[in-house]
Amino acid sequence: MSERAFLGVDLGGTNTKIAVVDKDGKVLQRSTIPTRAMRRAEKVIEDIAQEAVRLKENVTAGVSVEALGIGIPGLIDWKEGVGILLPNFPNKWKGVPIKRLLEEKTSLPVAVINDVRAITLAEKRFGAGREVTSMVMVAIGTGIGGGVVINGELYIGKDGSAGEFGHITVEPQGVRCGCGNRGCLEAYASGPAMVASALRALVQQNDTLIRDMVEGDLNRVTPRVIAEAAGKGDEIAKEIIMRAGLYIGQALSNICVVVNPEMIVIGGGVAQAGDLLFESIWRGLKERLFMAPVDTIKFSPALLGMDAGVVGTATWAKEQWTKGVIG
Amino acid sequence: MSERAFLGVDLGGTNTKIAVVDKDGKVLQRSTIPTRAMRRAEKVIEDIAQEAVRLKENVTAGVSVEALGIGIPGLIDWKEGVGILLPNFPNKWKGVPIKRLLEEKTSLPVAVINDVRAITLAEKRFGAGREVTSMVMVAIGTGIGGGVVINGELYIGKDGSAGEFGHITVEPQGVRCGCGNRGCLEAYASGPAMVASALRALVQQNDTLIRDMVEGDLNRVTPRVIAEAAGKGDEIAKEIIMRAGLYIGQALSNICVVVNPEMIVIGGGVAQAGDLLFESIWRGLKERLFMAPVDTIKFSPALLGMDAGVVGTATWAKEQWTKGVIG
Amino acid sequence: MSERAFLGVDLGGTNTKIAVVDKDGKVLQRSTIPTRAMRRAEKVIEDIAQEAVRLKENVTAGVSVEALGIGIPGLIDWKEGVGILLPNFPNKWKGVPIKRLLEEKTSLPVAVINDVRAITLAEKRFGAGREVTSMVMVAIGTGIGGGVVINGELYIGKDGSAGEFGHITVEPQGVRCGCGNRGCLEAYASGPAMVASALRALVQQNDTLIRDMVEGDLNRVTPRVIAEAAGKGDEIAKEIIMRAGLYIGQALSNICVVVNPEMIVIGGGVAQAGDLLFESIWRGLKERLFMAPVDTIKFSPALLGMDAGVVGTATWAKEQWTKGVIG
Amino acid sequence: MSERAFLGVDLGGTNTKIAVVDKDGKVLQRSTIPTRAMRRAEKVIEDIAQEAVRLKENVTAGVSVEALGIGIPGLIDWKEGVGILLPNFPNKWKGVPIKRLLEEKTSLPVAVINDVRAITLAEKRFGAGREVTSMVMVAIGTGIGGGVVINGELYIGKDGSAGEFGHITVEPQGVRCGCGNRGCLEAYASGPAMVASALRALVQQNDTLIRDMVEGDLNRVTPRVIAEAAGKGDEIAKEIIMRAGLYIGQALSNICVVVNPEMIVIGGGVAQAGDLLFESIWRGLKERLFMAPVDTIKFSPALLGMDAGVVGTATWAKEQWTKGVIG
Repeated sequence: MSERAFLGVDLGGTNTKIAVVDKDGKVLQRSTIPTRAMRRAEKVIEDIAQEAVRLKENVTAGVSVEALGIGIPGLIDWKEGVGILLPNFPNKWKGVPIKRLLEEKTSLPVAVINDVRAITLAEKRFGAGREVTSMVMVAIGTGIGGGVVINGELYIGKDGSAGEFGHITVEPQGVRCGCGNRGCLEAYASGPAMVASALRALVQQNDTLIRDMVEGDLNRVTPRVIAEAAGKGDEIAKEIIMRAGLYIGQALSNICVVVNPEMIVIGGGVAQAGDLLFESIWRGLKERLFMAPVDTIKFSPALLGMDAGVVGTATWAKEQWTKGVIG
Repeated sequence: MSERAFLGVDLGGTNTKIAVVDKDGKVLQRSTIPTRAMRRAEKVIEDIAQEAVRLKENVTAGVSVEALGIGIPGLIDWKEGVGILLPNFPNKWKGVPIKRLLEEKTSLPVAVINDVRAITLAEKRFGAGREVTSMVMVAIGTGIGGGVVINGELYIGKDGSAGEFGHITVEPQGVRCGCGNRGCLEAYASGPAMVASALRALVQQNDTLIRDMVEGDLNRVTPRVIAEAAGKGDEIAKEIIMRAGLYIGQALSNICVVVNPEMIVIGGGVAQAGDLLFESIWRGLKERLFMAPVDTIKFSPALLGMDAGVVGTATWAKEQWTKGVIG
Repeated sequence: MSERAFLGVDLGGTNTKIAVVDKDGKVLQRSTIPTRAMRRAEKVIEDIAQEAVRLKENVTAGVSVEALGIGIPGLIDWKEGVGILLPNFPNKWKGVPIKRLLEEKTSLPVAVINDVRAITLAEKRFGAGREVTSMVMVAIGTGIGGGVVINGELYIGKDGSAGEFGHITVEPQGVRCGCGNRGCLEAYASGPAMVASALRALVQQNDTLIRDMVEGDLNRVTPRVIAEAAGKGDEIAKEIIMRAGLYIGQALSNICVVVNPEMIVIGGGVAQAGDLLFESIWRGLKERLFMAPVDTIKFSPALLGMDAGVVGTATWAKEQWTKGVIG
Repeated sequence: MSERAFLGVDLGGTNTKIAVVDKDGKVLQRSTIPTRAMRRAEKVIEDIAQEAVRLKENVTAGVSVEALGIGIPGLIDWKEGVGILLPNFPNKWKGVPIKRLLEEKTSLPVAVINDVRAITLAEKRFGAGREVTSMVMVAIGTGIGGGVVINGELYIGKDGSAGEFGHITVEPQGVRCGCGNRGCLEAYASGPAMVASALRALVQQNDTLIRDMVEGDLNRVTPRVIAEAAGKGDEIAKEIIMRAGLYIGQALSNICVVVNPEMIVIGGGVAQAGDLLFESIWRGLKERLFMAPVDTIKFSPALLGMDAGVVGTATWAKEQWTKGVIG
């Protein structure tokens, strides 16, 4: 009997990764294609399907690809597999039947999921959360996303939005978020939020190393630059990172009184800002959470690297297929 | 073969209710004893055990009592069944082995749980939540508590504190809560918080019917008085209830991005403040939650009455006993 | 030639003080009559006029009473001497021609002024501010009022409202003030605001000496009780006073960037809360004011006692009469 | 007898304007020299003195220059004429005896004053405030400054800082200002603050015309660009201007309860953002000020153009010289 494998697709704004992943989360084959996100959604999906079919047809002998999972950076109707809101894509994905199109073109059962939820599943099965039964993951990047694991399983809720931690209210009278709410975490602690704070410091003539590092060019300010400046002791940069961390900690204290998890995993590109961010998150949590013994919560960075997206989506496909939800 | 039943105990600050409950949540026998909360915890527990034993020994022929569940108004180490913090009791319950003492004195397996979590379970099995697989309940009274149902089961988390919604931060720079945090929901939307707002209006000479209703006596202001004044159109009273509702809605929006439930149930004594409170909660939620289609969330008052506590604790005992966690 | 003297009237909610005051601020005769504030304004004014005339007719030989000043606890049209808003009086003073009625009934020129502005003038001429040319006074009582001295003269502005410091915004999204604004200083740092904070602590079951001191009777909580509890080390009481002080300091920092005074005088009944209040005001000011060297600002409690009101109003009458504004 | 005239100097970050101004505020001669602000303060002063002497020596026959006034963009010890803090200059002006150096090099009596205070005086004598006896001016530019006119005279307070309206606290828990305080108006409503808000919108991918107008180059965002975008109906730009205006209105409501002026004058480069800014300032004021009849406050843009600085400083020199304070 052949070994079962699953296709995982990690749809990104610039590139899309596709991989064949075995049942233990090992990548057997991988491929990266340009997304060319400005095109119509159907075109993007067609390219993905074509590459997926190519990978499927070229798998090692004895491996059989059973299903495909795709991670979407945005809101989706996960049951129907239809796009709702992809913030970093042109607004042409709304109503597009991603699942049906991919199923038609690949002849595989397809499971659609939010991209960070998929990464959370990967961390649970093969990364930081292997040995816990409950955990939450927060991924800090261009936006802030997350996922919830309960009783050892990824829990996505009624509409698939369990884990949308970027939209926890941290400043009730704060700035308007793209979502419609005021004061969302994402508007205070994402990468762009940190960059915006640095830009504010620059235009207000604050004394900071960031100015020299970008040679006065506002376009060159990134979370990485801020993290580097903080590493060199720059007070402005340190305050920016610290405030972001405290806000994330505040959000986590809310998350903890709702699901009281064993473990918190912090991931996403901005999480590489380093120790100061982690310490501030922890401090923010400790200052606000008294309903659970904070020191017994496991606190870990994400352990999986660039493959987390494809591994997570393939694993989601496997689990949905195994349970008979798809296929 | 005899029918199985379970003892449910609802420990209150004034009275404690004890009942024999069948597997379908029907109360077969009930009893109420004075708690006399100023005594040592062991004494309180002894009285409860004695009455429980009396009920058990007098059950209808053919009924066999298998286990006892007790609901505690506060924080407990639910695995060990040891008290941590009971805000409305003298501070003598900390470290008291409630479970062990009750087991010794009743010769029954005992399951200890937070009181609002027990009510949540009762609402799930026999009340508002019968037909949903996920729900959250918020109970607004002297404090604000809650519970989480996921995949059809009460979910209490690592330490039993999943559902401590009263400690969601709604005003990050707000007043210090008894728990140690600043700006907890409980400090802004509980019964005492509403009373405090009314007292503020009274001492600041605001024009309100409440003054006449209590004949100028500050000691007589209660949530019920405020609700009555609001019902008569008093602007101050209406604003107090509305602000409390908006804060609860804000907290619910946070809860919803964490667990994205099918249903929200609102209970507790203060929930009887009526339509204005419910409308404000709903408005607060709608203003802030965009990650889930708010109009598809089922929204219900708690349906069970005064027996919810004993039914919930008995049912918790049944489920823990059936799974072999106790007994 | 006879010595000139002036009548000063200090209209209070309970009693009204009337005195004959010489040009050096010395009280020659004094009288106190019950205000009976529930009556029509005209009746109250009639009683005042009658007593004023009696005093005038009985002055020491060689003294001639030239004019009368009256201090009103509220907003007035000071040029016309007509009442606008007296918060602690029934709403019958609006539009009442106080000045004209008193002039008719006493046959004296009459100057009408806000009561705290009058006290500020008294402190300038005969109290804490004798040697400065600019000062502001803040009086903390049932409300919060104040006054401004510039170039050695009381400065009351276009409408007489220069000095309405109780309505500086200290919490932009804060509670609605009776005036219509949100977050006024008066709603956060007046006597009733402190009492309201203490009542909040009591109904929320916080651990405080205040409960015992009032034997559980909410009606007995006063700023004095809070000050006493703070003096005994009660943390809740200390926090209440400290927060009020910090808010006053914040308001003062705003006042200082507007008029940059030589001296700040703190008066009013609540100022007797003592050192902790003064220290907190000072700390609040120092934390926020960097546009003037804080340590060079003279900072003093009000030095005049119970007579400040009559002395201030009589002195205001003297100065208006001397300048020919009245008479 | 010769006609008296005065030199006015308007020290700017890029250029410095110098003019001979007659007693009626008319500019008789004018000159502009590059400031070259990176040099030592003494060098800058030397160039100014040299040009001032040149102008003085070349005045029209029959005109005699009696004194020189210089406006400094920052904090100064105005009595001694020594620099304290010039935010937009390298930190070499602290302790520099500006007055003494200029007096030595020009052989004229010199009066040193904050630049916006000088403009306020110019507006009082020759601009918007000619017919009022009390007014405040707010100038919105790189920073936010102001001035106070009382009893027909510029009032600068004990240290010359009466009018530092940019440091009124408008967000008590807000961002740290360069001055040391939190939540200063300047950090929320100055030109750089508006630019920072626009940059935030750009990096957070908000939908705004500003992006196209600057062709994606963050360095090109200016208050003028924001005003233009708002003029074209851009919602983001309109919100930025509106929020700035509301904050200025909030600060003005505080100013009004302190000095209750007849007139408010709005000037500075950013004031050219137009009607939306003015309307929002007015709305912010009306929402918060109830201690004075807002509709009776005169509200005007600054009327003097580019010469306001030299006219104001020359006039300040004239008034100080006439009173014998200098000379």
